[in-house]
Amino acid sequence: MKLTILGCYAATPRTFTNPTSQVLDINNRLFLIDCGEGTQVQLRKNKVKFSRINHIFISHLHGDHFFGLVGLISTFSLLNRTTDLHIYGPKGIKEIIKLQLRLSNSWTNYGLYFHELESLESEIIFEDHKVVVKTIPLKHRVYTNGFLFQEKIGERKLNIEAVQNYAIDTCYYQNIKNGRDITLEDGSVVLNEDLTFEPIPALSYAFCSDTVYNEDILPIISNVEVLYHESTFLQSEENLAKKTLHSTAKEAALIALKANAKQLVLGHYSTRYESIEMFKQEAETVFPNVLLGDDGKSFEF
Amino acid sequence: MKLTILGCYAATPRTFTNPTSQVLDINNRLFLIDCGEGTQVQLRKNKVKFSRINHIFISHLHGDHFFGLVGLISTFSLLNRTTDLHIYGPKGIKEIIKLQLRLSNSWTNYGLYFHELESLESEIIFEDHKVVVKTIPLKHRVYTNGFLFQEKIGERKLNIEAVQNYAIDTCYYQNIKNGRDITLEDGSVVLNEDLTFEPIPALSYAFCSDTVYNEDILPIISNVEVLYHESTFLQSEENLAKKTLHSTAKEAALIALKANAKQLVLGHYSTRYESIEMFKQEAETVFPNVLLGDDGKSFEF
Repeated sequence: MKLTILGCYAATPRTFTNPTSQVLDINNRLFLIDCGEGTQVQLRKNKVKFSRINHIFISHLHGDHFFGLVGLISTFSLLNRTTDLHIYGPKGIKEIIKLQLRLSNSWTNYGLYFHELESLESEIIFEDHKVVVKTIPLKHRVYTNGFLFQEKIGERKLNIEAVQNYAIDTCYYQNIKNGRDITLEDGSVVLNEDLTFEPIPALSYAFCSDTVYNEDILPIISNVEVLYHESTFLQSEENLAKKTLHSTAKEAALIALKANAKQLVLGHYSTRYESIEMFKQEAETVFPNVLLGDDGKSFEF
Repeated sequence: MKLTILGCYAATPRTFTNPTSQVLDINNRLFLIDCGEGTQVQLRKNKVKFSRINHIFISHLHGDHFFGLVGLISTFSLLNRTTDLHIYGPKGIKEIIKLQLRLSNSWTNYGLYFHELESLESEIIFEDHKVVVKTIPLKHRVYTNGFLFQEKIGERKLNIEAVQNYAIDTCYYQNIKNGRDITLEDGSVVLNEDLTFEPIPALSYAFCSDTVYNEDILPIISNVEVLYHESTFLQSEENLAKKTLHSTAKEAALIALKANAKQLVLGHYSTRYESIEMFKQEAETVFPNVLLGDDGKSFEF
């Protein structure tokens, strides 16, 4: 699982900082999460292949999370894309994009599918045989969702030595990996656990931005491998965080702790602070495994 | 008169090139012309004061000319702007911006005024005592205007030596600069031309992008000081230019020649070419005074 932060600063694009966008590569699926202005340039700079982007998740309709989307959709057209593109985001996003395409007398030469969200409960919005994506309802100034990306638990791993000891034919291997016991020619049954090892544990990633401190999300993200949680402010601006429905670094760490996350990644920093190092220091007073997100940084888990 | 090119490449923003946007500083008025994605970052990089931008002109509703507008409008709000902002652009632009503000539950704390254009004839869209701005109807795939910025002819310049010779009181100086003759105490009249020099000639700037080769614009831009004319292609792609309603470098030069412009600035280059130097060479076969626009370049006239 690889997370590439294209941008993780709040509010406006600036000379050296970018608004929110990130790419998650999980189980050979690539997901683009949020798409602030300048995302397509950040994708180029970080050498993400445009052709691998088929699913884009938009948390909410504040500009620093989606003003780059219409440009990316247009660029896909200019690059002669033919593969379907799926957009998951708040109700209204389709109208915004369609209006701009219509008024510019443009269209996409590829299938453009909008999956508009309006539920206040967590729901599955993407699923294939490898990955499932669920919404994480967040509390912000507009309708907002985080997203939980979960690998499905994989096949059990074949214990080659054991399988060969029993002289089992290769045509049964897939059944064994799927968890089946095997009946030998003499009628005896070999239990699956004697032929396989445990599968690689399923990875998971929760993206939570933007949101005020909100314990309601804990059951959804419980035991998540990696939690990205916004930390717009430090505790010194706690009141401002409450007022604008954002979180502090300490609050992000509290959510990580209570959710029993393995790893916390911070981001969505207000540009009022001189250094983001202080966010890490503050979060580490509560939770040990803190990574600082930053534009252009990649993390492998 | 100072022209700063923020971006002058066609189609999509890329790692080192930006879509169309430029700033014209004429007679102490600042005008932003077009606003492709990333314009607000280009403004910062080129140290243009956001507070000086009060009038934005959008040529047409193709993304590479306006996808940065909604972000800039939002950023002005976040910067607590209070001064009115005027947007001049094709009908529909108001709906695009207002829809995005509404769906993000946002508003501007400053006056935001849209001047929507739909005329097919040239018209005056801005005028104060120093500058007038007219549309230049262009031919492109959607409704498109260029813009002609003209200084008004200024005051005559006082001939201090002559004025002092006649012992004229300073309280008459403004009248003299305004072109009035003066009656001395002995009743004799001194003609204005004996007290003043000619005013500084009025500068003018024509922005023409995007457009196919179109001689209909010649009467509007006749004798312009500086003509920015798109040159998306070279003559080798003449057919493509015709098909997509763009111009070649040679065609841009022909327009400059026939309009009796003093100076031609090229831009809106397709990124298919390895070097933009070829655009200059091609244009110079027709017209001598050719400047290559490029991102981050400023020209003083």
